[in-house]
Amino acid sequence: MKTRAAVAFEAKQPLEIVDLDLEGPKAGEVLIEIMATGICHTDAYTLDGLDSEGLFPSVLGHEGAGIVREVGAGVTSVAPGDHVIPLYTPECRQCKSCLSGKTNLCTAIRATQGKGLMPDGTTRFSYKGRPIFHYMGCSTFSNFTVLPEIAVAKIREDAPFKTSCYIGCGVTTGVGAVVNTARVQAGENVVVFGLGGIGLNVIQGAKMVGAGRIIGVDINPDREAWGRKFGMTHFLNSKGLSREETIAKVIELTDGGADYSFDATGNTEVMRTALECCHRGWGESIVIGVAEAGKEIATRPFQLVTGRVWKGTAFGGARGRTDVPKIVDWYMNGRIEIDPMITHVLSLDEINKGFDLMHAGESIRSVVVY
Amino acid sequence: MKTRAAVAFEAKQPLEIVDLDLEGPKAGEVLIEIMATGICHTDAYTLDGLDSEGLFPSVLGHEGAGIVREVGAGVTSVAPGDHVIPLYTPECRQCKSCLSGKTNLCTAIRATQGKGLMPDGTTRFSYKGRPIFHYMGCSTFSNFTVLPEIAVAKIREDAPFKTSCYIGCGVTTGVGAVVNTARVQAGENVVVFGLGGIGLNVIQGAKMVGAGRIIGVDINPDREAWGRKFGMTHFLNSKGLSREETIAKVIELTDGGADYSFDATGNTEVMRTALECCHRGWGESIVIGVAEAGKEIATRPFQLVTGRVWKGTAFGGARGRTDVPKIVDWYMNGRIEIDPMITHVLSLDEINKGFDLMHAGESIRSVVVY
Ligand SMILES: [Zn+2]
Ligand SMILES: [Zn+2]
Ligand SMILES: [Zn+2]
Ligand SMILES: [Zn+2]
Repeated sequence: MKTRAAVAFEAKQPLEIVDLDLEGPKAGEVLIEIMATGICHTDAYTLDGLDSEGLFPSVLGHEGAGIVREVGAGVTSVAPGDHVIPLYTPECRQCKSCLSGKTNLCTAIRATQGKGLMPDGTTRFSYKGRPIFHYMGCSTFSNFTVLPEIAVAKIREDAPFKTSCYIGCGVTTGVGAVVNTARVQAGENVVVFGLGGIGLNVIQGAKMVGAGRIIGVDINPDREAWGRKFGMTHFLNSKGLSREETIAKVIELTDGGADYSFDATGNTEVMRTALECCHRGWGESIVIGVAEAGKEIATRPFQLVTGRVWKGTAFGGARGRTDVPKIVDWYMNGRIEIDPMITHVLSLDEINKGFDLMHAGESIRSVVVY
Repeated sequence: MKTRAAVAFEAKQPLEIVDLDLEGPKAGEVLIEIMATGICHTDAYTLDGLDSEGLFPSVLGHEGAGIVREVGAGVTSVAPGDHVIPLYTPECRQCKSCLSGKTNLCTAIRATQGKGLMPDGTTRFSYKGRPIFHYMGCSTFSNFTVLPEIAVAKIREDAPFKTSCYIGCGVTTGVGAVVNTARVQAGENVVVFGLGGIGLNVIQGAKMVGAGRIIGVDINPDREAWGRKFGMTHFLNSKGLSREETIAKVIELTDGGADYSFDATGNTEVMRTALECCHRGWGESIVIGVAEAGKEIATRPFQLVTGRVWKGTAFGGARGRTDVPKIVDWYMNGRIEIDPMITHVLSLDEINKGFDLMHAGESIRSVVVY
């Protein structure tokens, strides 16, 4: 079949909207009609050529929602007509990681996914006879895409695609970091560095679980209003502050330090600040942001010996097929909000504008609706 | 009263055995006759002038066992005749840290202890009218010493002083890191870097809780026999191996990486190796060793984002008054061993020889018996 798609033919070039050839689902795979997709920083990171493992030409996009249109042999967990969210972190429920109960980082299809391929080592997309790589196992910048069954989460049918697609990455990453990775308890103090889309979702996750003080830190004063909208109780403008000054402010606001801090900036210096502003004895810092290639984080080991813990999270620690439907429920029940975060709605033809808005810091989230 | 003591009059000089004046216990304090004391790397670290906050003249020593001889006003938890272990990490059971239930790092007397003083801001030791500083709140290199009530753990009377003094630091630090900080479960794989006294206690803690593979890593092949004596199942001689090579060996021995790794070297490069050899998704690395002043640990944030956790431990995460008596029980019940680790027994007059043995790597633990 044919599918309209925004293709990244090479790094640092705008996406091109073309009609691709798409092979149908093989055994264990499903064909999905993508109804809406968010444009995420990770897509831009790859398109800008910053990811040394980025592959071209490829169909980017990993934050989608859609409808199953066809299933391959042996598929039992979803059927045509089901509403689903594609998962860049699959959940096979069979591998050592899934069975450990300690991580969401399923390894079932990791090797091929990292190479832009389906589990059988081939692509379903092609253009003029030439294969086009998949991206993060999702490729939601195509109106139709093919995924392994283990990489789709079935969701309720009353959830709007335009907003629930954001649960495919940003919402789950931020809310899940609080709920699954940090496991913040009611009354505990939370500090969030970086009030972009991820940071705002950390804030609303913290609010949902009844956190005490929820402190947002950013160098852009315009973000204060955004933070407060989702539950931030205190704002710290860290522009021009040294690490020591920022830490002192956080310690003052939290009576000794953060119970949990989150880095949603991707800046390794900020990651250090986030760790060191944690409370002596028990504070935990969670790295969410993706750092520039080659950058390292550092601290004095004394910070750890005196009880601080340094962790990270990917896809918010969520096991996709199990946890994503729950987050959709939280959204539909009003426990978290998404609608105000979708600042721009575009057609596929306008997708490059979504990247421009993100780079300019003008959007929280742009969504393409097919 | 008078007490015979080994005094550190200045850095980088041998201790001098002299008779000091000792004031009796004030309110909330106890006078203890030290019966035996270990000589720990931390004493040497301070004596060698490496600790920028080291104070002189002082009575070093923080790993003792003895008998309460007198108590000050208001002391209710111990009485003359009680056998006790001094605690450099006190347990007041009243401060924010103690009440958190999340840390053993009691802050009740932290400020004065760090300045070599008793909680009232004075010293009990003096020499020719000049005050002599306390050390880590213990000063067990004196036959008699004074401690706050909250800094002594009452232990059973059938425990020999010569060996149970080691529970005052090394044993609790190593065993506690496994039991309290990492909370290793039966069957989990453990990797220990550095097979000195702390590392061996990590090994026997791991054995006690039923760990799976217990891998010891050291650059000294003589340590293999020591490790196996306490439960090590595999030895890795890392001499000449690059970080990548060491990690590859550990991954091979553990089918993917350590569930828990422990650094007992104090070397920040080894700390990084210890983190990075942990299993993707859940491996936790615990820093035990005290690093050189100013040294930093570093890694790529990707290590954390893919599920590794970086932690530290002080005094094995043990709440001294609560947990130290339990460790004494484990020793007396044969669940852990101490006797073979006490390689040298000295008189107070021979204490400088204990430091020499440690520097030469010839002792696991030297103990001074009064
Ligand atoms: Zn994303
Ligand atoms: Zn799996
Ligand atoms: Zn010690
Ligand atoms: Zn306390």
